[in-house]
Amino acid sequence: MIKTDILIIGAGPTGLFTVFEAGLLKLKCHLIDALPQAGGQCSEIYPKKPIYDIPGFPEILAGDLTRNLLEQGKQFEPGFTLGERAETIEKQDDGSFIVTTNKGTQHQAPVVAIAGGLGSFEPRKPAIEGIADYEDKGVEYIIKDPEFYRGKRVVISGGGDSALDWSIFLTDIASEVTLIHRRNEFRGALDSVEKVAELTKLGKINLVTPAEVKELHGDGKIEAVSYVRDGETIKKETDHFIPLFGLSPKLGPIGNWGLEIVKNAIKVDNSLNYQTNIPGVFAIGDVNTYPEKLKLILCGFHEATLMCQAAYRIINPGKKYVLKYTTVSGIDGFDGSRKEAPKAVVQAIN
Amino acid sequence: MIKTDILIIGAGPTGLFTVFEAGLLKLKCHLIDALPQAGGQCSEIYPKKPIYDIPGFPEILAGDLTRNLLEQGKQFEPGFTLGERAETIEKQDDGSFIVTTNKGTQHQAPVVAIAGGLGSFEPRKPAIEGIADYEDKGVEYIIKDPEFYRGKRVVISGGGDSALDWSIFLTDIASEVTLIHRRNEFRGALDSVEKVAELTKLGKINLVTPAEVKELHGDGKIEAVSYVRDGETIKKETDHFIPLFGLSPKLGPIGNWGLEIVKNAIKVDNSLNYQTNIPGVFAIGDVNTYPEKLKLILCGFHEATLMCQAAYRIINPGKKYVLKYTTVSGIDGFDGSRKEAPKAVVQAIN
Repeated sequence: MIKTDILIIGAGPTGLFTVFEAGLLKLKCHLIDALPQAGGQCSEIYPKKPIYDIPGFPEILAGDLTRNLLEQGKQFEPGFTLGERAETIEKQDDGSFIVTTNKGTQHQAPVVAIAGGLGSFEPRKPAIEGIADYEDKGVEYIIKDPEFYRGKRVVISGGGDSALDWSIFLTDIASEVTLIHRRNEFRGALDSVEKVAELTKLGKINLVTPAEVKELHGDGKIEAVSYVRDGETIKKETDHFIPLFGLSPKLGPIGNWGLEIVKNAIKVDNSLNYQTNIPGVFAIGDVNTYPEKLKLILCGFHEATLMCQAAYRIINPGKKYVLKYTTVSGIDGFDGSRKEAPKAVVQAIN
Repeated sequence: MIKTDILIIGAGPTGLFTVFEAGLLKLKCHLIDALPQAGGQCSEIYPKKPIYDIPGFPEILAGDLTRNLLEQGKQFEPGFTLGERAETIEKQDDGSFIVTTNKGTQHQAPVVAIAGGLGSFEPRKPAIEGIADYEDKGVEYIIKDPEFYRGKRVVISGGGDSALDWSIFLTDIASEVTLIHRRNEFRGALDSVEKVAELTKLGKINLVTPAEVKELHGDGKIEAVSYVRDGETIKKETDHFIPLFGLSPKLGPIGNWGLEIVKNAIKVDNSLNYQTNIPGVFAIGDVNTYPEKLKLILCGFHEATLMCQAAYRIINPGKKYVLKYTTVSGIDGFDGSRKEAPKAVVQAIN
């Protein structure tokens, strides 16, 4: 059982900034995310795209924002349960909650902050008969750890940035990379498209277009796929089949937690601390809704900050918290680090 | 008469970010600030101090934050009335407001956003008889433009960073710099204290401690000051006397605008758009108050953003605004500039 002060569902920008604000109040955080890395959409969907409306950054790449937020919170030593989806929540007699993931990992905390963005990202799966039987047996929809494919033959399917970028990346790791796409045209960053063209010429990527995987073969695990090109069915031996057809967000199991849901978002009290209809459970960032809500990262930062104050009072009943400014008081990390502004000296001049 | 869409009182971080968010909605902003430059406290009080709680910046100097915010908003071409204090507000028959400064400059806008921080910064004035008669006649409490002192003799009084830094700066501009402080000890950044010591040794700063200016002389303008050291009164000829004893914030004339004030802050409706009791007048950032208010820069950013949506509806009645993401739609500046994420290419690979 993982125990923490604030259990955060979702490790996107709002969840990551919560770690920092909670840390200032001496509260510890643990984050659960269905994706294999922190950053939410910013890391998974558009890491190389610029965002222009983060205050103080005329322009910042989404991936860099994630890195900065991780850096900003790291002295408060957050815990992570990644690649698992929060599945159930149970209120305990002591007022705390136990949240269990789809893999059975249990987490306990007096405060739960749902920072789930548009929901957990579920891969779009191709309509191939029996594909579910091969999941985690050679079929993967998300690449969690590229090293997993070292020395293996992989067939990647898809025509966007993910398919292009992973095909490029895996040429150095896998023993054979086949990229199958149902059109001749790919849609992605110019340099990725050009790189795939180059690697194809060099024989490092086996490019098959226009073609579609129609059948999977193997006894207990993938051994081959069959694809159709120009009306002809071709069988191709492989150790892995990786369809990268994008991710689509779904509120998912959180929708069954007894929270008040309005238009696929969790209703919160914006006149106070973004608490949901379940006391002790908050919703912050894109996942929540209230009058005049804007789904902007900068709003999530504000919501997270106010929520942490409420969490403090739940966790420290009767204790009064006095806001300290970081510029004045500095920051004491849970790891023993200290950051502070240089102090003014008092010195005589002769 | 200066006309704009959103008239912002206060050019601190919240006011500056408003320019950007308003710009995304094609609304133009004009800012009034009593200080001679943009940035509010961040520029005037602690430009060289690090802030640790701006989301996405593990550390940023307050002065750099100001510069970044100016850069972020500059394509929306904000107007500025600096060094003047907003004094009166009058509602017009057409629903717009006219705001007049202490220097008589008039501004008209359908929406007023008060982003006045802790108030306008009023200099702490030394208790010297008749000093008010010499204000703007050789006595200045804030240095607006150092060039104003070129070739002139200046007497600076004070023992903190401002007194130290301006004494250093003016040695290259003024014909003579005298620094008078009532103690031998100065309180400031180590390098400033050391630099003043060095310039004193070189004879470029005439350092007088412990001493206090007690009397001012001059016919219609400052011609000399008298200071007391070791019980002895010494008369010193000078063109300017600049007491730099710090600034203290005062809500000031805004307190008489008919706004609902609670504990020196303006009450707003946080369940919607941070509107005050006067429709069309909003208060954002440290100047406002509501249940669970935190006086943090990041909260001002959120408040400014929601306020701009309300301003849009006031200015464009009946028109519906659909939120666009900067990452997806880019930014069109009023100056004709365009920022956008590199587009994905659609290209065949042969």
